[in-house]
Amino acid sequence: MSSALPPLTPPPEPVDMPLLAFGSADDEPCLRADAARNRARLLEAAACLVREQGAANLTMEAVAAAASVGKGTVFRRFGDRTGLLTALLDHSEKKFQAAFMSGPPPLGPGAGPVERLGAFGVALLRRTGDELELQLAAEPHPERRFSAAPRRVLHGHVVLLLRQAVPAADCELLAQTLMGYLSPVLVHHLTRQCGMPLERLEAGWLDLVARVTRTDFCC
Amino acid sequence: MSSALPPLTPPPEPVDMPLLAFGSADDEPCLRADAARNRARLLEAAACLVREQGAANLTMEAVAAAASVGKGTVFRRFGDRTGLLTALLDHSEKKFQAAFMSGPPPLGPGAGPVERLGAFGVALLRRTGDELELQLAAEPHPERRFSAAPRRVLHGHVVLLLRQAVPAADCELLAQTLMGYLSPVLVHHLTRQCGMPLERLEAGWLDLVARVTRTDFCC
Repeated sequence: MSSALPPLTPPPEPVDMPLLAFGSADDEPCLRADAARNRARLLEAAACLVREQGAANLTMEAVAAAASVGKGTVFRRFGDRTGLLTALLDHSEKKFQAAFMSGPPPLGPGAGPVERLGAFGVALLRRTGDELELQLAAEPHPERRFSAAPRRVLHGHVVLLLRQAVPAADCELLAQTLMGYLSPVLVHHLTRQCGMPLERLEAGWLDLVARVTRTDFCC
Repeated sequence: MSSALPPLTPPPEPVDMPLLAFGSADDEPCLRADAARNRARLLEAAACLVREQGAANLTMEAVAAAASVGKGTVFRRFGDRTGLLTALLDHSEKKFQAAFMSGPPPLGPGAGPVERLGAFGVALLRRTGDELELQLAAEPHPERRFSAAPRRVLHGHVVLLLRQAVPAADCELLAQTLMGYLSPVLVHHLTRQCGMPLERLEAGWLDLVARVTRTDFCC
């Protein structure tokens, strides 16, 4: 994870800011920064609750309580529960992108492409395991399943690493194969419907990366 | 394809049987066989039309004209257009299953497991290319995407061949990966949305099988 991003656990100091006051203060840099921090803190609290209790059980009230703010603050910030869930996925997506684009290795730059591919899949599987219901609910219609923006960013990253690892291969197609393994619907099927532990999927990912890149990588 | 199954092109002899008369004649083996042949002939005509014009353009009238029977015959046999499309997919599924289970090699038994895997994917990609709209329309809800009966049969076949080819691997997970490459939604994305020729997907499949089984197979 990038060190510039807020940690997954909420910061210890309580920061119950009057978020309503920031609603029309977009031209005030200082207030904008505070509002952004508050928003991130609410989202981190919501992410914790989703990991612990599942997205189906997430309520605006629980987020408010977990972040030690009033319920009205959460409603003013996200509109409704759907707005909160959408913001939560977007927040998680941005954190994950920052981690593989500019965070520490092996997920971020600094490790070899095969090792980075391994770390990418393991990190994405864990994230999907945490947010399964959320990601399933947000699954795009088949027509847009492969062209939706977040999917394209992840796919592009896998193509980039594959081009470094196996430049002679059809990396576009191999990337589709690897991304298919990481699909939330498949993770749901294997872990919830077939009862496989996530660790088996992680080991399977590392084995798949090794086979696809014709390496002996194993960690 | 199994030689016991009707060929894809309709038989040359016109067989415009009064299908209505067979509706309650299930205890008459001879009539049942005739009815089954007629049903298969209508489905082959419909499959031809789908390949040539796409499923969206398939009408009961066109099937009747192509099979040289009255329109009423097609309606009595399949109820409505949805019934026809459902029967068409089921028919195509059964033919494909017969081909890889008991047809000639390399798709059927008699070739090595890696060669059979190669032939399986190429044949399935071609079938999907022919029936794309049909398969997309029939795509199960995410909850059932991996557990629907036809998908399970195909998946089971891939697991079987992988166990012969790479017995030490986690063949269940590798089979999910290979089946993901053959998903109708991905084929649609790559061929229709990205403009890739099906031949590139076929070559990509053979390369993927070689990588996954750590062989040099190429045909």
